Amino acid sequence: MSRAFNFNAGPAALPLEVLEIAQKELIDFNGTGMSIMEHSHRGKAYDAVHAEAVANIGKLLGVTDDYQVLFLQGGASLQFAQVPLNLLGEGQTADYVNTGAWASKAIKEAQKVGKVNILADTSKEIPTNMPDFDALAYTPGAAYVHVTSNETIAGTQIQKFPNTASPLVCDMSSDILSRAFDLKQFGLIYAGAQKNLGPSGVTLVVIRKDLLERAPTTLPTMLQYRTQAKENSLYNTPPTFGIYILMLVSRWLLAKGGAAGIEKINRAKADKLYAAFDNSGGYYRGSAVKHLRSIMNVTWRLPSEELEEKFIKEATALKMIGLKGHRSVGGCRASIYNAVGMDAIDALTSFMKDFQAKNG
Amino acid sequence: MSRAFNFNAGPAALPLEVLEIAQKELIDFNGTGMSIMEHSHRGKAYDAVHAEAVANIGKLLGVTDDYQVLFLQGGASLQFAQVPLNLLGEGQTADYVNTGAWASKAIKEAQKVGKVNILADTSKEIPTNMPDFDALAYTPGAAYVHVTSNETIAGTQIQKFPNTASPLVCDMSSDILSRAFDLKQFGLIYAGAQKNLGPSGVTLVVIRKDLLERAPTTLPTMLQYRTQAKENSLYNTPPTFGIYILMLVSRWLLAKGGAAGIEKINRAKADKLYAAFDNSGGYYRGSAVKHLRSIMNVTWRLPSEELEEKFIKEATALKMIGLKGHRSVGGCRASIYNAVGMDAIDALTSFMKDFQAKNG
Repeated sequence: MSRAFNFNAGPAALPLEVLEIAQKELIDFNGTGMSIMEHSHRGKAYDAVHAEAVANIGKLLGVTDDYQVLFLQGGASLQFAQVPLNLLGEGQTADYVNTGAWASKAIKEAQKVGKVNILADTSKEIPTNMPDFDALAYTPGAAYVHVTSNETIAGTQIQKFPNTASPLVCDMSSDILSRAFDLKQFGLIYAGAQKNLGPSGVTLVVIRKDLLERAPTTLPTMLQYRTQAKENSLYNTPPTFGIYILMLVSRWLLAKGGAAGIEKINRAKADKLYAAFDNSGGYYRGSAVKHLRSIMNVTWRLPSEELEEKFIKEATALKMIGLKGHRSVGGCRASIYNAVGMDAIDALTSFMKDFQAKNG
Repeated sequence: MSRAFNFNAGPAALPLEVLEIAQKELIDFNGTGMSIMEHSHRGKAYDAVHAEAVANIGKLLGVTDDYQVLFLQGGASLQFAQVPLNLLGEGQTADYVNTGAWASKAIKEAQKVGKVNILADTSKEIPTNMPDFDALAYTPGAAYVHVTSNETIAGTQIQKFPNTASPLVCDMSSDILSRAFDLKQFGLIYAGAQKNLGPSGVTLVVIRKDLLERAPTTLPTMLQYRTQAKENSLYNTPPTFGIYILMLVSRWLLAKGGAAGIEKINRAKADKLYAAFDNSGGYYRGSAVKHLRSIMNVTWRLPSEELEEKFIKEATALKMIGLKGHRSVGGCRASIYNAVGMDAIDALTSFMKDFQAKNG
């Protein structure tokens, strides 16, 4: 088998080692004569998987006793609503920063629930941009402040999280566990698993425990964070196979040296790819403002749309998959999540040179 | 490998043939050099899987143009809320029938949303029971009527669905596609996948299209059925691996002759197991009223709790897994979903005879 270079934005590349274990165990998990998919979510075999997933994510994110790890369903898209439904009380205001497509979606859902103050809007700027988070006029007494750590489509990433008086809530879907950060700065973080953590269908939420009790009990039981917090994410049947893969990925991440270890690798990958733009004499132009460049989603343009189309087509033929920019912005994008290796970066930068030589 | 006899209530047994295909393809799906988990939900490879899943479920359930198949997340537990949030307008009443633990949960969530009329309550009856659905006093002009086709814990099953003037909504989590039925009788059916359709983390909803537009647009976008209906369940990233397994299960079901074909097999399995009670001289006593016995979840008692414990322990040692009744009711339960073969029934009934001979 020849493995593709997978630059998909999500669902995305998974570590080959993880897939190999999953394949080996798929029909017979740990000699039980059953697939992990066939085990009861209340039985011993799955229980150990679930507990290890919670513990490993705790270790990787530096989760302390005042926080809780939850595995939910519905993706970040459901969190866009669940966050305000739980945290935005009547008469309160939530601060949001609009940095792009994903922040915009979060804002739209919050506006259905309560009062939203948009602190800054850089969502339409080109080159893609973010505001200076330390210079924003945060609302005194805001229910929370919502930011998007990494804009998958724009290719921008918050470089330094602000210290906010109100609980900081962050959509980390596209850069969770790609770099070290201090969880203490946050009230709640959430992330769809399908970029850095596992397959689609699992949503990671880490919530500071004092925030668990904010939701009105009139809210549907499944939408209250306290429901799954009380039951360790086992109030109802969780997506057991997805959590199993996430657990294997968490093991793989621990072996890489955790968040700090993988960050070093990720920065080296991103540096090499961005250098390929910067050394191309302007042939490849990064789409994001330089100091906000994402180490996860690298976005760029070629001299024309025709060349971009040709570039993507030829790269695809060389098994470099997923290089087309999001349909809303065009251009090229390489998502280089944790499981994308340096071999993929080397293949891509080498192709970039060849392509420029032939089409420059 | 010796495969266990899997009587789990859910997540539950999957067809071995399905697991074998999934294992073979896990790292390299159709020669793409990537796992199906790593494919974009907007790419060609997954697109074909998704389309086949929708088409096959359509064939199996007799879905016509006036209905739509949706793949959602959050399990039946989220549907308990999503149904009233979408269908129960202000000032309207929804009729519910309380037949046990699952119906009770559905009722609790509906009561948070609007006015609920409980048509009948058999949830506390022993032997476990259901009302005569044709004799209920349905509310004229009710927003909908909600029933639970199969009570997993009680081991009872609706034998004949009522013809209701208001749209009939049914939680079919534990008997979906185990028997033939006429979809035309229903406004909406829903089912967590983890019993008869695939792994946990996918929820099947089939909705009559005229009901799609009932929800207030102020509802969170992800909770409106119309959102996923418009986007063929691709508004956000769906649980792609779960839908892939569901697609493989749907192929397997079609090869078995569809709902009618699998029903014949299921009835033969259930008949054999119930006969083992009825021919035991009262040693094994079925927990459900005879004419409502479920062909999916078979529940029974032994002469004492001590014997039940011994029975379950010895059966487990013989690799018959999951025979303990739900903790809320005790006793024994064998969940004999579509993927549980006659070999499992034979092993169990043979063990029942031996056990009675030694402990009778």
